[in-house]
Amino acid sequence: MPGAPRPAGPPGLSAYVALSQLLGLAALVATGAWLGRYRGGVAWAGGLRANVHPFCMVVAMVFLQGDALLVYRVFRKEAKRSAKVLHALLHGSALLVALVGVAAIFEAHGEKGIAHMYSLHSWCGMAALVLYAVQWLLGFGFFLFPGATFALRGRYKPLHVFGGVALLVLSVAACLLGITEMLLFNIRDSYSQFAPEGVLANTLGLLLVAFGLVVGYILTRDDWKRPPLPEELALSMDFKTLTEGESPSGSQ
Amino acid sequence: MPGAPRPAGPPGLSAYVALSQLLGLAALVATGAWLGRYRGGVAWAGGLRANVHPFCMVVAMVFLQGDALLVYRVFRKEAKRSAKVLHALLHGSALLVALVGVAAIFEAHGEKGIAHMYSLHSWCGMAALVLYAVQWLLGFGFFLFPGATFALRGRYKPLHVFGGVALLVLSVAACLLGITEMLLFNIRDSYSQFAPEGVLANTLGLLLVAFGLVVGYILTRDDWKRPPLPEELALSMDFKTLTEGESPSGSQ
Repeated sequence: MPGAPRPAGPPGLSAYVALSQLLGLAALVATGAWLGRYRGGVAWAGGLRANVHPFCMVVAMVFLQGDALLVYRVFRKEAKRSAKVLHALLHGSALLVALVGVAAIFEAHGEKGIAHMYSLHSWCGMAALVLYAVQWLLGFGFFLFPGATFALRGRYKPLHVFGGVALLVLSVAACLLGITEMLLFNIRDSYSQFAPEGVLANTLGLLLVAFGLVVGYILTRDDWKRPPLPEELALSMDFKTLTEGESPSGSQ
Repeated sequence: MPGAPRPAGPPGLSAYVALSQLLGLAALVATGAWLGRYRGGVAWAGGLRANVHPFCMVVAMVFLQGDALLVYRVFRKEAKRSAKVLHALLHGSALLVALVGVAAIFEAHGEKGIAHMYSLHSWCGMAALVLYAVQWLLGFGFFLFPGATFALRGRYKPLHVFGGVALLVLSVAACLLGITEMLLFNIRDSYSQFAPEGVLANTLGLLLVAFGLVVGYILTRDDWKRPPLPEELALSMDFKTLTEGESPSGSQ
């Protein structure tokens, strides 16, 4: 029934998506305020280069990554392939911004003669980034181009979905570790006196946790999953019947 | 068919549960090794009281909490009410051990004149603990005693399940923050030289993450969920038909 009106999204979903965006934007504002007001700002020059790192990582590994995960819930009436391309583009952009953020901290460390990759923050963050790149490549190969057989897609998809949520959670955890490191390196003594910078950065941490919780809640609500559109259902049945294991495009 | 043999667990579940226990035990050993070898041990006296905190929190908020979540997957052939009582007992024990751990750090801070609750670690950890206590009380009230109506249980259960996983994740994140704090307070300079204590504590962090990931994976695999036993299914249908909203005991 191509002419039939498609039903609106399930009740509650829009409110939770709006809440997630409010929390994500509040986290971005808090990051900017922290770096701008207390850390001299963000620039690819001199001592400010180190500040590019937290800014890029919050933008990429929390906000963009989280929003990429929500694509299938938000654009539930669009064609599956369009949603899939947007999902891949958002994750791809996140990956690029995150690489800039990592380059910034490696350069900043190198200039100051600080060792690389010694902290728990760096171990968790690097694990998240490498696994994120692997997940993107696997997702692209399995679901977009060249695409795998129905059987292979079906076996990989649950792992891809679990991996997506797990990587967002690990990324948020790595951000919290980074916030704690920055505070203990910069304002160790006044932090315990509830210095405004510390309270702001702690609040940023809670905003990141709240964003992760709300996105995780939206993703794990069974009744908010994107149902296949009527035409996809018919198409997918046809392909399954006709090709038995061949790789149709546009269906996951 | 009370006499019919019950089927074994789904393939793969036992291996993942065994892996989770190996990771959990490895995390406990790493915690003990860190505190014993580099921090003078654990005791409720003098400077060692502060070490009671990390030990109790890893035991309670990671290992016991994680295992409590696995009860329904592991004891899938036992009566639902038995599994439920074990689930509540394990979470209750975790809560008690965690309270001891929190008392230890408050006393240690008080003795040394260190401010309470100023760090992101303390904010995340306290949020996790308070919500964990609330979740336990709600779970007890809804599902064990006095028990709520079928309709109320049905509405609360998805939130209870999501909250359970989210609280484990938040607890692991709080532990990672605590590890980073301890390292930066105690071995700030040698940490960046890859001091063995730093490497051990980072490894503990990764073990906690791995434990959380494996437990999370087990809990979110749809085909590993505990199916109702035949007698529960019959009983539950009877109750639903007969009482329509009344509160039966022994079913969730």
